[in-house]
Amino acid sequence: MRDVYILGVGTTPCGRFPEKGAHILGREAAWAAIQDAEINPRDIEIVFCGHVYQGMGVGQRTLKEIGLVGQPVINVEGACGSGTLAFWESWRSIAYGQFDIALALGVENLSKVLSGGPLPLDEEDIEVALGMGMPALYAMRAQRYMQEYGVTSEQLAKVVVKSRKHAAMNPIAQYRKEITIEEVLDSPMIADPLTRNQCCPVGDASAAAVLCSGDLVKKLAKKQPVKVLGCVAQSGKYASAEKLTCDPSENVTRTSRLAYEMAGLGPEDMDLAEIHDAFSIAEMIVCEALGFCEKGAGFRLIDEERTSLGGDIVVNPSGGLLSRGHPVGATGLLQTAEIVWHLRGEAGDRQVEGANVGIIETMGGAQPAMDGITCVVSILGT
Amino acid sequence: MRDVYILGVGTTPCGRFPEKGAHILGREAAWAAIQDAEINPRDIEIVFCGHVYQGMGVGQRTLKEIGLVGQPVINVEGACGSGTLAFWESWRSIAYGQFDIALALGVENLSKVLSGGPLPLDEEDIEVALGMGMPALYAMRAQRYMQEYGVTSEQLAKVVVKSRKHAAMNPIAQYRKEITIEEVLDSPMIADPLTRNQCCPVGDASAAAVLCSGDLVKKLAKKQPVKVLGCVAQSGKYASAEKLTCDPSENVTRTSRLAYEMAGLGPEDMDLAEIHDAFSIAEMIVCEALGFCEKGAGFRLIDEERTSLGGDIVVNPSGGLLSRGHPVGATGLLQTAEIVWHLRGEAGDRQVEGANVGIIETMGGAQPAMDGITCVVSILGT
Repeated sequence: MRDVYILGVGTTPCGRFPEKGAHILGREAAWAAIQDAEINPRDIEIVFCGHVYQGMGVGQRTLKEIGLVGQPVINVEGACGSGTLAFWESWRSIAYGQFDIALALGVENLSKVLSGGPLPLDEEDIEVALGMGMPALYAMRAQRYMQEYGVTSEQLAKVVVKSRKHAAMNPIAQYRKEITIEEVLDSPMIADPLTRNQCCPVGDASAAAVLCSGDLVKKLAKKQPVKVLGCVAQSGKYASAEKLTCDPSENVTRTSRLAYEMAGLGPEDMDLAEIHDAFSIAEMIVCEALGFCEKGAGFRLIDEERTSLGGDIVVNPSGGLLSRGHPVGATGLLQTAEIVWHLRGEAGDRQVEGANVGIIETMGGAQPAMDGITCVVSILGT
Repeated sequence: MRDVYILGVGTTPCGRFPEKGAHILGREAAWAAIQDAEINPRDIEIVFCGHVYQGMGVGQRTLKEIGLVGQPVINVEGACGSGTLAFWESWRSIAYGQFDIALALGVENLSKVLSGGPLPLDEEDIEVALGMGMPALYAMRAQRYMQEYGVTSEQLAKVVVKSRKHAAMNPIAQYRKEITIEEVLDSPMIADPLTRNQCCPVGDASAAAVLCSGDLVKKLAKKQPVKVLGCVAQSGKYASAEKLTCDPSENVTRTSRLAYEMAGLGPEDMDLAEIHDAFSIAEMIVCEALGFCEKGAGFRLIDEERTSLGGDIVVNPSGGLLSRGHPVGATGLLQTAEIVWHLRGEAGDRQVEGANVGIIETMGGAQPAMDGITCVVSILGT
């Protein structure tokens, strides 16, 4: 297996851009990544485009906008994990020797798709049809978690306070205003105990990364290249919601163990993490699944500010899904760009000092029972 | 690069099954392929699911139906080429050494998506918005082709007569009734010169293939395995429709040349072909692009019955898109299954005698200017 490096990353801001088609958002991020990598775009041999709701041929329509036509473009979908799935596809295309330079693109314009209604989930899933949408599912898990471990609403709200504090320093974040515990709890109740401020926003964005083989990196890299130390994609085991427990997500646990193994590293080696905090409770459970703490101790990481900037394992310095935003197919590559910026020392006021190794976790499709459609975990290092 | 073999294939019939969700169609084909391969389904390490219109997580929902959960499942989209894109992904996953056993699945339930309206194409394409849908585009090309090469409506209609004759012998074909030139021309005009019988039908189906590495084939193969001699995916160059010419499709030409090169074979070595005859004119143009004849001589292949059963290069023994059917994401794997059956000598009354090498061409997204979103060409041999 060959070494793979990230030469450049690029993103749009996160926000509501109903007037911008996916291909317009996509071209901004793709071009930004190409410029960041300082490569000739015609050297890109293959493109993977992750999205969920943007229709046929999005990758091709996007690449056409920047004059890149002819090479293979593959649109991939793995629910909210679509962006990191595009990254995984790009990585493996190089790691196993088929291609030397790949572009991973993630894009979503949710504003165009949603008109005030809920996220279109699996219409044939009986649990979804009965109301088990994303907020309801996460709320059930939060209720059980709070009861089992004696966690309070205030502790749950602290996840959002930390998230907004980080996002206030992130120029591309959708919510950049700091918030108090009271403000989090006083926002309208969506699914008890989750108030609106504990749910990630609807938003639009695109993000991209240029990857190349270890053979080419010395020749091509103009900036500090970032190495892909591990990259694993897995699907969920579709446990029924009746089996909903407080255990860390089986899928995140399994996928991250495989990624740690590939990297030859463990959770204790991670300096920072970008994880899938679609709702406040998710951050606690995912931190446990990634091995940052014991089962049931995720809330302590927040309480003790270990996951805040300055802590020993900084989680979501970007503001995460809760504050930077969650434009479905773009999310995984927004997370990837954030880790790259930190490893290069380019993250501005929110820079994690001495960041050498970072981990990215994206979970796509939480229903049923949070084991999801797709989980992708990548580990990046300098 | 490692050798890759097809261990088994399976399909549903082609037809209108509005009551069957994509995951129900999908499980039938996936299970049929697994049974045909006579492998333990739990040995499948990765799954690719090609579809266009079936929503989030189709591959995962399908695989769950047969108890296959946990392994990576990647949903891929390349317009009408989505099924062969899933095949290409499966092939490369094995050829480059990442996995040993893969399942390629293609599925589409168009009946559920369309309610009498046209196929949803790119809504932001100005040419599509102005009426340049699929029939209009192919009709323009047909008009030009007929004028330039002196081809008559009767000659165009012969493509359909041959297609129905083949399909009459194919138990899974959607249209199995033989037809005369007069009946083809007397059906309602859709886009002059293309009558309804010269357009492929709307339909639903699924098809699948189990692939494995050359290292495992001796151990696993219970039937005659079929070798993947070449497999290439490319995207179109998005020429504007104003540049519409009579030239063979640039994308099909380019992709097939690369596939021939990989296989170390040429068009003269092909015994049979399954090609993307979405409209009658397409068969002529694609035959030229694949190198079966000179530019502008595609209609002669039909006239001289060289592409009919018994001819020297049998094209679409299944009945092709025009008669077997064109359930978008399933099409590429329906084509693949057909070639596998012939190479194994299992094609019944429509068996191409002595078939040793077959080629599959799928074109996804013909607009604009027929160079398309995705073209995949595979070459299979005994």
